[in-house]
Amino acid sequence: MKPIQVGLLGIGTVGSGTFKVLARNQEEIKRRAGRGIEITMVADLDTVRAKSIVGDAVQVVNDARAVIANPEIDIVIELIGGYGIAKQLVLEAIEAGKHVVTANKALLAVHGTEIFAAAHAKGVMVAFEAAVAGGIPIIKALREGLTANSIQWIAGIINGTTNFILSEMRDKGLDFDTVLKEAQRLGYAEADPTFDIEGVDAAHKVTLMSAIAFGTPVQFDRAHVEGITKLASQDIKYAEQLGYRIKLLGITRRSATGIELRVHPALVPSKRLLANVEGAMNAVVVQGDAVGTTLYYGKGAGSEPTASAVIADLVDITRLHTADAEHRVPHLAFHPDSMSDLQVVPMREVVTSYYLRLRVADEAGVLAKVTGLLAGAGISIDAVLQREADEVGGEGSTQTDLIILTHDTREGTLDDALAQLQGLPTVLAPIVRIRKEELS
Amino acid sequence: MKPIQVGLLGIGTVGSGTFKVLARNQEEIKRRAGRGIEITMVADLDTVRAKSIVGDAVQVVNDARAVIANPEIDIVIELIGGYGIAKQLVLEAIEAGKHVVTANKALLAVHGTEIFAAAHAKGVMVAFEAAVAGGIPIIKALREGLTANSIQWIAGIINGTTNFILSEMRDKGLDFDTVLKEAQRLGYAEADPTFDIEGVDAAHKVTLMSAIAFGTPVQFDRAHVEGITKLASQDIKYAEQLGYRIKLLGITRRSATGIELRVHPALVPSKRLLANVEGAMNAVVVQGDAVGTTLYYGKGAGSEPTASAVIADLVDITRLHTADAEHRVPHLAFHPDSMSDLQVVPMREVVTSYYLRLRVADEAGVLAKVTGLLAGAGISIDAVLQREADEVGGEGSTQTDLIILTHDTREGTLDDALAQLQGLPTVLAPIVRIRKEELS
Repeated sequence: MKPIQVGLLGIGTVGSGTFKVLARNQEEIKRRAGRGIEITMVADLDTVRAKSIVGDAVQVVNDARAVIANPEIDIVIELIGGYGIAKQLVLEAIEAGKHVVTANKALLAVHGTEIFAAAHAKGVMVAFEAAVAGGIPIIKALREGLTANSIQWIAGIINGTTNFILSEMRDKGLDFDTVLKEAQRLGYAEADPTFDIEGVDAAHKVTLMSAIAFGTPVQFDRAHVEGITKLASQDIKYAEQLGYRIKLLGITRRSATGIELRVHPALVPSKRLLANVEGAMNAVVVQGDAVGTTLYYGKGAGSEPTASAVIADLVDITRLHTADAEHRVPHLAFHPDSMSDLQVVPMREVVTSYYLRLRVADEAGVLAKVTGLLAGAGISIDAVLQREADEVGGEGSTQTDLIILTHDTREGTLDDALAQLQGLPTVLAPIVRIRKEELS
Repeated sequence: MKPIQVGLLGIGTVGSGTFKVLARNQEEIKRRAGRGIEITMVADLDTVRAKSIVGDAVQVVNDARAVIANPEIDIVIELIGGYGIAKQLVLEAIEAGKHVVTANKALLAVHGTEIFAAAHAKGVMVAFEAAVAGGIPIIKALREGLTANSIQWIAGIINGTTNFILSEMRDKGLDFDTVLKEAQRLGYAEADPTFDIEGVDAAHKVTLMSAIAFGTPVQFDRAHVEGITKLASQDIKYAEQLGYRIKLLGITRRSATGIELRVHPALVPSKRLLANVEGAMNAVVVQGDAVGTTLYYGKGAGSEPTASAVIADLVDITRLHTADAEHRVPHLAFHPDSMSDLQVVPMREVVTSYYLRLRVADEAGVLAKVTGLLAGAGISIDAVLQREADEVGGEGSTQTDLIILTHDTREGTLDDALAQLQGLPTVLAPIVRIRKEELS
């Protein structure tokens, strides 16, 4: 049988990795897929560079629409990225009856509902394993491997850049800005790292996992997104002393009133495997009612790890495209006519535990005042760490750090209590508040 | 559309878990599968007990063949276990045109080639996610998630009983027999634990993973199988001091001359996530040429975790049974006409590193003699740990433990060197040899 013909839109890091791995492992991939898989046409604005990667056997054009218009092409891979032209091209490829493989988390997290509906109407597949956690087959695990379960929650380290930065801050005791520069020098962070360090990239990914886990439309616009730019290295140190590590987590959880969808730094018990995922690695923990806790670990980015996911999607499509469309694996795990309308709950309604650092005057009764106020608000305390006082200028007045770990409490309740605490004359600086996830 | 009708053969721990989870999550499972999935007939010798589990709505019989003969039944779940009657029934179900879901690793590891051939000829699916690592979707990851890769090696903690025992031996410094009794009391080990503690169960599982990873027929009869019954707690202690933990690993590796297929205790660097998988949990590390290292973690046994995998297979079949048989996912990942004939390499040809413990007379020159002999055999030493001498009766003669870690060496070469070492008059007891896997 003649090979499946694949057209590639955009041949950068992941695109060239996809071409390289497909070529290197073509014989083994064909034995698995039952049919050869060949990239026969590539569209890239830099045709010279593209030719230098794929050679003369592959047709290289600078117009993506020429690929989509080519009747020989069965599958289109979109690796352009972003919401702009990529969206147009994906919709046009679907309209032209092509199956689509994409690594574009931003596009799907924001416009997934429209794109999946178009694909469903046309009876084609839009596969996106590469959009979340690179080479880790987490989309497949959620959509197919755990279908027996009522998923309770997902918590993931799904941004390698921020995990690398946090690991370095902990190992070397350096502050954020210093480590960010190092990460940029090493290529772990981009020149403009905003999407990574502000948590937007992780939010795109957890949005997709949330939709698949709970059968809802993508709700990126409802996600709570906090990055790591304000993290102080001293909080990483205090957390360590209390038996925790700070990670940027993407969390989605089924709660009494809906679905939690949030990205923020969080303390994780050091004994959890997830807390020991260091450097640029990714890991996702999934809690199901039948299976219990499962964890998936691997490289979340990079040329060949991401290509591994792109090619797995190509093989899936090659194996299964003969199934009648109604009987394929639904894009979001649940069939379009049985999606749920679970809403994202506001952060004030989220219940979790917290790490608090208060800069206080070192005088009698401060701890009593602070804990008394928390008790009054119905917030119970799990642990307290009081530092030795340190001299700070002015009439030998001394200050100290007061670290408090709370038990589970409603975030709204905590916010109100913090507002009161902040008002105390003995609280000398803005209170630091970091969420704490026991993941048990 | 009317629900898929499922017949269940054998309703023990996993069977009742499967029934319970299917009932509890039926609405969500239907939304994922696009069609209801119902166990409508159960065969078990203890019909009274079976009825007490499934109630009156389900037909209960004591004759498995009545289920297979029922034209209403689309899928047969085999949870009887063993090679005997289970094999007959699976082949008869296939012959009757039923899709089969089984958790029977022993059956598939030994008779898989015959069974998959029969299923292929009949155009039905035989799904077995539950046969390896319980609820962890590792079969799916290997067969579908990592299809882009040339798999280099797989190393897994795939037997919860032995991992529980090893964790307890390490935590509490107890010896094997004591912990085994505790494990039996807690239900982590069966009355007859032979299959678990001798490594047979792990060998069944790694045999299946090996076939899927490398596209070979199942080769259980060629597997090297060593259990943990001879492990001394002092070696666990010494390993810890050297920065390692001892785990029972199922390993399959692509080597220059073929495929390694082995189960044995091994030292694993404490810093690896795999070394930190404790208690009855399972984890599998897969090394692919494109994706790099990935790890999959979760409960490897138990009623509902295993049911999670059984039901995932039911959903897969429900979703995909309309694909023409040639375009379904092949049972062993590779299409039957493109299997490889890679042979299992003999253990003497395996190259890995080793932990050695020698009981030696505490006298000058012993270390020099031992290391000199190893050097002469071309075996280079990574680390040496010499214990303080301890008095042992007889004319105040003293003895000591000499611990040696080697670099990679051919096992045959090491065996020959050990034979010579054992002959030295200063070596006072049988030399302890445990393999060491860096997993890098």
